[in-house]
Amino acid sequence: MSKHRWKHEPTEILLVRDGFALAGVDAGGTPGFHGDQGHGEKELARQMSQLGDLQERLYAGRNERGDAVLLVLQAMDTAGKGGVVRHVVGGVDPQGVALAAFKQPTAEELEHDFLWRVEKRLPEAGFIGVFDRSHYEDVLIGKIHELADEAEIERRYEAIVEFERRIAASGTRIIKVMLHISKDEQKARLTERLDRADKHWKYNPSDVDERMRWDEYMAAYQTVFERTSTPEAPWYVVPANHKWYARLAVQRLLLDALKEIDPQWPAAEFDVDVEKKRLAAT
Amino acid sequence: MSKHRWKHEPTEILLVRDGFALAGVDAGGTPGFHGDQGHGEKELARQMSQLGDLQERLYAGRNERGDAVLLVLQAMDTAGKGGVVRHVVGGVDPQGVALAAFKQPTAEELEHDFLWRVEKRLPEAGFIGVFDRSHYEDVLIGKIHELADEAEIERRYEAIVEFERRIAASGTRIIKVMLHISKDEQKARLTERLDRADKHWKYNPSDVDERMRWDEYMAAYQTVFERTSTPEAPWYVVPANHKWYARLAVQRLLLDALKEIDPQWPAAEFDVDVEKKRLAAT
Repeated sequence: MSKHRWKHEPTEILLVRDGFALAGVDAGGTPGFHGDQGHGEKELARQMSQLGDLQERLYAGRNERGDAVLLVLQAMDTAGKGGVVRHVVGGVDPQGVALAAFKQPTAEELEHDFLWRVEKRLPEAGFIGVFDRSHYEDVLIGKIHELADEAEIERRYEAIVEFERRIAASGTRIIKVMLHISKDEQKARLTERLDRADKHWKYNPSDVDERMRWDEYMAAYQTVFERTSTPEAPWYVVPANHKWYARLAVQRLLLDALKEIDPQWPAAEFDVDVEKKRLAAT
Repeated sequence: MSKHRWKHEPTEILLVRDGFALAGVDAGGTPGFHGDQGHGEKELARQMSQLGDLQERLYAGRNERGDAVLLVLQAMDTAGKGGVVRHVVGGVDPQGVALAAFKQPTAEELEHDFLWRVEKRLPEAGFIGVFDRSHYEDVLIGKIHELADEAEIERRYEAIVEFERRIAASGTRIIKVMLHISKDEQKARLTERLDRADKHWKYNPSDVDERMRWDEYMAAYQTVFERTSTPEAPWYVVPANHKWYARLAVQRLLLDALKEIDPQWPAAEFDVDVEKKRLAAT
């Protein structure tokens, strides 16, 4: 057994509370975890086996209980959403995962309220849903590029809080994560994408356009946190300059949500002895 | 480097050709592979890294080319579809996988042609789609339980061939797999599900009902093979009493499909030097 390296739980230390200031977060930190990358990778494997076990129980009980988990991932480009999906979410049984990547809305989606397409992708009971980007784009890029007017953006914060409250009340545990990298780290990662032909497909000239508005984005995120971090749907800001730490911390947030649900193997809805006899006779 | 243990390719040795007889397949065999479980597990890891690389290229090029892969999984209960999804499909980046589990049709689905719900779940370009059960249920359980009359079942074989031909022509490589276990092996696996409280959720009394109609199912599969194994959408029968072999063989079928597509990193749609300068200036 490895000694316990989490000195403070991510649910506590990364939580966006009243008075939170994004500007005060060190994107290069590894809060709560005492150990280096090697320790982190060992812990990732250890937590994964717990997560896999709990996820199987959650899925097994999907017809008995309405519990589900929704992980919302938001971040500036290159912050590592894809790595979290691959190395954390990818570690559990794909049959119990519902992944939704929200791109630029389609013409049909734009004809509906911004939450219309989100509602359709909510996880069913027993599932871990993962949003790669989400309805928060509608108050981030939507605000900065003035895709909606101020009054509409204001309305959306409130609509989001109501929406998430309803989802939570229906049995879905919501975990909202912003992966937070520094501006310098983003530059290094974008540079790598430009330097390597096998990474060009991940690069888009608009990435630099958005990067030029870094401070506006940070301010928009700060407002998002102030307006939408609620007890039912809390935000966590995860320092992500160290990829290993970001993956480990998000995994632990998921693990904590599943432990709170405490899913149990459902009882048999049939008479086990009768079935044994029927089977034996075949 | 491990020596090459595939003496015959699964694409050749497991292919359903004219004159194929399901009754002649040894469900306990490991055709084409020279090695034991230990060798198989090493080969699974080796093939996985190739598969992951090719899958990333397929995904990267999704806006340039229309290629996709569709893996159809059919089997009697307990044959190991779930294990294939978890250990083969689960090994590639979830962002490039579209998994669809087809259960008993809903009332809405029943109001449409049997292919309606299938069409909606076909993989987009760049994706590996996986069907856990499929439209073949409509000519298997549908036939045996007389959910449709004979003429309708006849119509369906032809409709399936036409449907799959169109899908293939649009750029989706179709791999249809029946995981084949023996009747004795199924008994052992169902017995284990009844013996373990943490497996009860996987058991359903109807599993024994269906088991009692084993021979009818084998005959229905034989007809499916005769009517629907085409060059555009071939069937492969994978012996599955050895789980390690079934996973390894399905993985290799996927790998072969991706190698044939031979996906390439897409060329940059921007001027790399211009972008480097723009980025440097930020």
